[in-house]
Amino acid sequence: MYTLDKFSTVVEQYKVVFFDAFGVLKSYNGLIPGIIETFEYLKATDREYYIVTNDASRSPMQLAEAYHRLGLHAVDQERIISSGMIAKEYLDLKVNDGIVAYLGTEDSAHYIERSGLQALPVGAINDNNIDQVNAVVLLDDEGFDWFNDINRTVNILRQRTIPAIVANTDNIYPVSGSNNVSIAIGGIAKMIESIVGKKFIRFGKPDSQMFMFAYDQIRARRSISKKEILMVGDTLHTDIIGGNKFGIDTVLVLSGNTRPGDAATRISSTGIVPTYVCQEAVI
Amino acid sequence: MYTLDKFSTVVEQYKVVFFDAFGVLKSYNGLIPGIIETFEYLKATDREYYIVTNDASRSPMQLAEAYHRLGLHAVDQERIISSGMIAKEYLDLKVNDGIVAYLGTEDSAHYIERSGLQALPVGAINDNNIDQVNAVVLLDDEGFDWFNDINRTVNILRQRTIPAIVANTDNIYPVSGSNNVSIAIGGIAKMIESIVGKKFIRFGKPDSQMFMFAYDQIRARRSISKKEILMVGDTLHTDIIGGNKFGIDTVLVLSGNTRPGDAATRISSTGIVPTYVCQEAVI
Amino acid sequence: MYTLDKFSTVVEQYKVVFFDAFGVLKSYNGLIPGIIETFEYLKATDREYYIVTNDASRSPMQLAEAYHRLGLHAVDQERIISSGMIAKEYLDLKVNDGIVAYLGTEDSAHYIERSGLQALPVGAINDNNIDQVNAVVLLDDEGFDWFNDINRTVNILRQRTIPAIVANTDNIYPVSGSNNVSIAIGGIAKMIESIVGKKFIRFGKPDSQMFMFAYDQIRARRSISKKEILMVGDTLHTDIIGGNKFGIDTVLVLSGNTRPGDAATRISSTGIVPTYVCQEAVI
Amino acid sequence: MYTLDKFSTVVEQYKVVFFDAFGVLKSYNGLIPGIIETFEYLKATDREYYIVTNDASRSPMQLAEAYHRLGLHAVDQERIISSGMIAKEYLDLKVNDGIVAYLGTEDSAHYIERSGLQALPVGAINDNNIDQVNAVVLLDDEGFDWFNDINRTVNILRQRTIPAIVANTDNIYPVSGSNNVSIAIGGIAKMIESIVGKKFIRFGKPDSQMFMFAYDQIRARRSISKKEILMVGDTLHTDIIGGNKFGIDTVLVLSGNTRPGDAATRISSTGIVPTYVCQEAVI
Repeated sequence: MYTLDKFSTVVEQYKVVFFDAFGVLKSYNGLIPGIIETFEYLKATDREYYIVTNDASRSPMQLAEAYHRLGLHAVDQERIISSGMIAKEYLDLKVNDGIVAYLGTEDSAHYIERSGLQALPVGAINDNNIDQVNAVVLLDDEGFDWFNDINRTVNILRQRTIPAIVANTDNIYPVSGSNNVSIAIGGIAKMIESIVGKKFIRFGKPDSQMFMFAYDQIRARRSISKKEILMVGDTLHTDIIGGNKFGIDTVLVLSGNTRPGDAATRISSTGIVPTYVCQEAVI
Repeated sequence: MYTLDKFSTVVEQYKVVFFDAFGVLKSYNGLIPGIIETFEYLKATDREYYIVTNDASRSPMQLAEAYHRLGLHAVDQERIISSGMIAKEYLDLKVNDGIVAYLGTEDSAHYIERSGLQALPVGAINDNNIDQVNAVVLLDDEGFDWFNDINRTVNILRQRTIPAIVANTDNIYPVSGSNNVSIAIGGIAKMIESIVGKKFIRFGKPDSQMFMFAYDQIRARRSISKKEILMVGDTLHTDIIGGNKFGIDTVLVLSGNTRPGDAATRISSTGIVPTYVCQEAVI
Repeated sequence: MYTLDKFSTVVEQYKVVFFDAFGVLKSYNGLIPGIIETFEYLKATDREYYIVTNDASRSPMQLAEAYHRLGLHAVDQERIISSGMIAKEYLDLKVNDGIVAYLGTEDSAHYIERSGLQALPVGAINDNNIDQVNAVVLLDDEGFDWFNDINRTVNILRQRTIPAIVANTDNIYPVSGSNNVSIAIGGIAKMIESIVGKKFIRFGKPDSQMFMFAYDQIRARRSISKKEILMVGDTLHTDIIGGNKFGIDTVLVLSGNTRPGDAATRISSTGIVPTYVCQEAVI
Repeated sequence: MYTLDKFSTVVEQYKVVFFDAFGVLKSYNGLIPGIIETFEYLKATDREYYIVTNDASRSPMQLAEAYHRLGLHAVDQERIISSGMIAKEYLDLKVNDGIVAYLGTEDSAHYIERSGLQALPVGAINDNNIDQVNAVVLLDDEGFDWFNDINRTVNILRQRTIPAIVANTDNIYPVSGSNNVSIAIGGIAKMIESIVGKKFIRFGKPDSQMFMFAYDQIRARRSISKKEILMVGDTLHTDIIGGNKFGIDTVLVLSGNTRPGDAATRISSTGIVPTYVCQEAVI
């Protein structure tokens, strides 16, 4: 059904490369072996790169530090576009004042506080301050009590006609050391949305805002055509269809969510067709 | 859009009456005032009745005792058909041995144990016993840790190809003393089902099994036509469409989920049309 | 993932057998070779059987005649339970007068006319008679102009607060002489339902009414336990989950919708587990 | 629930205005009375404007000519961003050769032909040329035979692993001279997508590409902030949530899909909150 291409012969045809993070650069065992050399090659050949990630659990600085600790120094803060950043941009533009209630860790609230708004965990919303809540932001699946705070979120959204923003559209994420998964905030968001019957605003791949954000940053420095950009990802439903829809070429790598044995079936059953398939993002 | 009928002039046309429980017989303030007299009338005029309830949190005996404590002695165990009973029947017929893992309170596990199967809360399933799990049953939204046990349920169902049974199809239920709601196990079930991508088996209105169960009990004693049965409920999406589809006449009462001010809009927007609308199930 | 059982060793354990029609008894090449002998065996061993089919395009008499023309004389009218019959029962019980507008062939309208109601094709509904339309029934994908009559159905249901009944829940059906399919009325119904935002009433597997209808016919003559009934079908989402949910044992045959090469994957990905898997319903 | 603002006091706060077309500039009775003066005001005060429309049935030139014939000369081809244009951009970037099969009028095929690709109506695809089909584009609900060509589209997409592009996400559109509607290609696309089980690529509001397209055109000429742009639309689910998500202010006008009597209910039930509500886009 597909030809397996060498990553080096694919990447050399492009001037800019966008990478998904988990399953492409790293896994639960640490960095994908050889990934440091990939970035050395990109730097040596003057190719630009961005990490485009559905991760709103930590700030770009914290995300970059995690790569540095693993030895991947090429990924610094300026190279990371997270879905949390797009949510922050929304809050900057569309929410002027009041409280933003959030589901997530304290780290994830960084994106709200940077907007100059008052971030309060959903668990801190009560009858006295609910009237000042002007947005609810769903950032991460950890950092709160599921029973109390998911139900509280439902009731805040029943009581207040305000936007609900989802900063990570993933439904599940893999859990360390097994084939197990955990429900991500995107999966919880779908349940809450269906129960309150309101329309949530989602940021993250496959939506094009992160691609546009990176594209704008490049265009601010030099001229670039979408034909010169490559998106590298391990997930058909986010990385590949998102890149395709944005109009850039895409490569599916088999080092994460999509296993070598499943790739052909998944491509034909979903109709989401990457431009290339490579074993991993390694030169 | 609709005519408000007197409940007494409706009920006198039928020989058997099915009642939903919450919002019809009782609310968070206790019994609906006048409901005791309704059952006195039914008894005095030799009309048969059943309580048909999407409740798998407690056994019919426990449910009946709660009515007795409120002073409604006419509702005894034999008059109650719960969705848990239908789930139990499924387990009796289709699961022969092994462990049945459940989400719910200890009381709700009654329905599994009555089937002679080993009931274990999802939280007690681990690598040592997961291979003996032959069904997962979702009974109630309380009695477990949402974060740990919902995620564990996802992983059990990813690992084992076994049926998942939902014994209460409601998405939400009202919470005492306010306009607030809580997510019911039916809402949680939809999230898990969507995440694991498998097809769950649901018992409870609007499905017809409970109606059939009651209908069979009546037919075992005497001949009856569906034209002689009335379903009384407060919810269009369960009681009314379920009764309609089963082929019996239906009355929507405005003492619970459907408020007087919303009834006309909801009927026309859903296309779920009760045979009658009454203020409440009171003579 | 599954063991392939001999159909004869399966069927001999049961007293009653329910069969799906297409993909089990016949295909586009005519009868499944050997199926006549299956029914000879059932008759010789006094096993009872019913054909339980999501087909509302023709009357049971017409359906039976088609089997007779193919040489399968054991399938007569009394042995066929069609989803159209369940829709007819609904109309008998719940629609008292007026016009029933339908999408389908003239043959399919048989089910409405048998109820003593006035059946008019959707194309015959206009400003003069729309106020007398008391139900819309979706019977078959042929016999009408899709563009005009699907749009007309949408507008009837926007204008009138009346039940919409779907008498065949299948989404697609195979088309002669190729791997191609055609959209069935169940697929069209989902589009219309989503567009008008109303809740349709569906009859057909996986719902239990047809199983119950057959079960009642048997019980009228003799005592039977659900443990003694076997459902034979080629489709996991209708025959197998429907039979499982009704509480009877099920056998998936690989002569129709589910191909031998796909069966294991489909069972594990859907979580719909038949009691047995057999190559075909042939002794 | 909302305050009705004067359109003039809203619009004077912005430097650029995006308008939806149908329900905002025109209705089936022709231009919205007073709309010509709105554009005179915009020109006189040096405000820039774009028409941002989910319409792929005709080229921007044909769309502009229709406005000119109605007397609205301010709307010329360069001011119109259609969802068809975004689909064309996708084809330019992602489909290199072969046949693009389409559902729609001949006029709508303009968008494909402009890409230098061979456009063939779905009805012209057969066993001889199906292997050269490299994309399917759904453009308009007219210009083809629904029964034959919708089924043919299903079968092309079952046979070929290629992208399916939907160039108009609307589900319905109003029909002249009545309260009736017609199913739009977006509604048909959902049915086909659900039946083939593949993921389609959609262009049109609420997605941000059209907004980005207009935004890029403005930025090519001068500096602009999203805070200086206003989106004017009559539909919460496309214009308003799309504008909100793109980060610009939005005004809901009550001259089209959202009636004055429904606006408050719809805003609170959907949670889609416009920055302003105005009677119509008239100074």
